[in-house]
Amino acid sequence: MVQQTGMSVEVIPVEGIPIIHEGDDLPRIIAGLFTFEDGDILIIASSVYSKSKGHTIELDKIKPSKKAIEIASGTGEDSRFIQVVLDQSEDIILEYPFVLSVLPHGHIGVRAGVDNSNVEKGTAIILPPDPMAAAEEIRDAIYRLTGKDVRTILTDTCGRAFRRGQTGTAIGWSGLPAISDYRGKTDLFGTVLEITEEAVVDEIAGFANFIMGESDRGIPAVVFRGCGSWNGHDEIYFPEETDIIRGLLKKLVDQ
Amino acid sequence: MVQQTGMSVEVIPVEGIPIIHEGDDLPRIIAGLFTFEDGDILIIASSVYSKSKGHTIELDKIKPSKKAIEIASGTGEDSRFIQVVLDQSEDIILEYPFVLSVLPHGHIGVRAGVDNSNVEKGTAIILPPDPMAAAEEIRDAIYRLTGKDVRTILTDTCGRAFRRGQTGTAIGWSGLPAISDYRGKTDLFGTVLEITEEAVVDEIAGFANFIMGESDRGIPAVVFRGCGSWNGHDEIYFPEETDIIRGLLKKLVDQ
Repeated sequence: MVQQTGMSVEVIPVEGIPIIHEGDDLPRIIAGLFTFEDGDILIIASSVYSKSKGHTIELDKIKPSKKAIEIASGTGEDSRFIQVVLDQSEDIILEYPFVLSVLPHGHIGVRAGVDNSNVEKGTAIILPPDPMAAAEEIRDAIYRLTGKDVRTILTDTCGRAFRRGQTGTAIGWSGLPAISDYRGKTDLFGTVLEITEEAVVDEIAGFANFIMGESDRGIPAVVFRGCGSWNGHDEIYFPEETDIIRGLLKKLVDQ
Repeated sequence: MVQQTGMSVEVIPVEGIPIIHEGDDLPRIIAGLFTFEDGDILIIASSVYSKSKGHTIELDKIKPSKKAIEIASGTGEDSRFIQVVLDQSEDIILEYPFVLSVLPHGHIGVRAGVDNSNVEKGTAIILPPDPMAAAEEIRDAIYRLTGKDVRTILTDTCGRAFRRGQTGTAIGWSGLPAISDYRGKTDLFGTVLEITEEAVVDEIAGFANFIMGESDRGIPAVVFRGCGSWNGHDEIYFPEETDIIRGLLKKLVDQ
């Protein structure tokens, strides 16, 4: 057996989380099922957090606007569902063949991250209105419950441009910088790396999503142990004026 | 200590890989540093594979075309470097403020994945011309060397639309489906999931990139142990006519 000298990372699903309902104390449930260590990164599917907080909307109570009806007739979706999507959005980038929009907290996503799977029929789950605060709240709660300094990430599953399939994406985080910033560091040959920023929070969220599974496995929380720490910043969303693809799409849609 | 009943995944860096040069036998070097088990997933940075195969280009030998000079004057890059990018590309989606193009094997990337970091000055590394064949070749070599049935992924680091920072992305793979296909499966409430395809190969590639690090840590190979298997398909690239964002951008650029 060759000895590994380096640090390896363990990725551990939190097993046994029941179906979550409004009012459930999600951090307490998780802390009762898992023994944390300082430095662990706890990744939670935002849909489960939203359900625990009642961030769900019954479509029966929604009256769609003319705009929602117009978009829904193009996309073939429920106009009340589209109304929820519009209500969540701050800026619409595309309406057809799917709604792509900017949320108030900066995230850009298809259908504004509104989800009608893994929830009772006729109900839509919305993303946590302030996902950064939600991640911090969970982090604080885990600390109060366990005394352990755990970092947290809330995820959503999102499509990407140019590539098929969804991946887990970070929408809120606490205790770690979203982006590891290598600018100014040197590569193996001493060349200064000018523009290398690594979106580590999404790389972690993505693999957490792999462990969670998407359908009826139902593992909404995963712990990464041994990740170390890094320097960087949280500016994962482009300012509107520097977002090239968004600007081009908007220009086209506004024509 | 709460017992974990579920499977956890171990992510292990392959330590000790030297700087790779043309002609080096990369699978043999890795097999000499790591004890594989059946089912392991070996992720390798494509830049290192390319270097071992001599997929590098000395810029001094490149004569830039008028087109390359024109683009380079806009982007502020070396026109010989842009010529290499154009030579690698099958279809240019954007020229400014960065070249975004389609490679013959389907991957869409900025600067066609051509890299001038972690290589001698004046040299550019290109992506493996056939990354699927490269992943299969490494897989076969590891099997011959170790007798272990290992799955493989080759990665590149790529930017994304709408979000800052790069993430590891799969450009070649062997022994596993790129996309886990949940279509037809039911969610927790029995609703049929209609469009859920998860790009697991990118979720694994992304977290592998986190472990590799980007600058002078220089760990170009990582092993994932305990990932299980899944059903799906390899169609990670949209056919051109169904790629919404590509179509819109091309429309704009062609105007």
